[in-house]
Amino acid sequence: MYHLIVRQFMRSLKNLDAIMGKAEKHAEARKFDVNNFLTQRLSPDMLPFAAQIRIACDSAKAAAANVAGKAAPAHEDNETTFGELRGRIAKCLGYLETLSAKDFERTTADQPVKMPDRPNRPGKTLRAEEYLVARQMPFFYFKDVTAYDIWRQGGVEIGKSDYLGTLEYLEG
Amino acid sequence: MYHLIVRQFMRSLKNLDAIMGKAEKHAEARKFDVNNFLTQRLSPDMLPFAAQIRIACDSAKAAAANVAGKAAPAHEDNETTFGELRGRIAKCLGYLETLSAKDFERTTADQPVKMPDRPNRPGKTLRAEEYLVARQMPFFYFKDVTAYDIWRQGGVEIGKSDYLGTLEYLEG
Repeated sequence: MYHLIVRQFMRSLKNLDAIMGKAEKHAEARKFDVNNFLTQRLSPDMLPFAAQIRIACDSAKAAAANVAGKAAPAHEDNETTFGELRGRIAKCLGYLETLSAKDFERTTADQPVKMPDRPNRPGKTLRAEEYLVARQMPFFYFKDVTAYDIWRQGGVEIGKSDYLGTLEYLEG
Repeated sequence: MYHLIVRQFMRSLKNLDAIMGKAEKHAEARKFDVNNFLTQRLSPDMLPFAAQIRIACDSAKAAAANVAGKAAPAHEDNETTFGELRGRIAKCLGYLETLSAKDFERTTADQPVKMPDRPNRPGKTLRAEEYLVARQMPFFYFKDVTAYDIWRQGGVEIGKSDYLGTLEYLEG
């Protein structure tokens, strides 16, 4: 199950990157700077688009590393262009691709996963199963969908199939 | 895994319902009709709030029923008030609560799940694992997060902990 969910994060990140390509074409056709998306927010008290993408990447990366009992590589939050944000997704996918089903074979549902320390308190601990299904999965999709919603507000012509990607339907 | 993900849908629906309670208080304090949310959209070409909630309910219900090999009860799309939409969530949770881990014991990753027929084509078929992880899970969160984003735009004071709900941290 752990590897299955990590592969789903990879698929969702690839779908996100494919939409970034569509957004670039949309900006070109409409003659605006695609980098304007980086600071776009759904509401003034929400994080901007660039942060949604960075945190989506980091939450997928942390999910995979933590349940595999490994340390994830750190990626600096310094992207200032759309191209650099796509590079951030590529770096994240590059790391996730180094992990295989074998890396998750020894993960148990009860394995403790420590959340990062916060300035005011030490990180709390979750069971691996709770961490992945109740924390990282909805948290990742929060970022992914909010980025998608910003695109929709920005007029990028995308639909359900861009968000879900190509599903592996059975023949017949 | 199947029951685990279904329970997570239930948790997310409960979080959604708790936020509906906060939205009611927000509307009351700001002296506007909370039912105005029902027709609110992030963009004119997106579905309104009421549809996001209905489809979130239906996708969780279908996910559970399909992987358990059962037929889900039909719930009509006729809600015109916020209270009725909360009733829709309650009906969906009521159904999901009738399913226990035992109902998913015989589910296999390769079990075929047929998607609903469309007016122009018969429903396609997915493997249970692909259906749940690659289709229903991201699809459910698409609806859930878009509803959340509509609230944020509407000024409801909610944050990550409302969306994720209470996580079961380990002591220590």
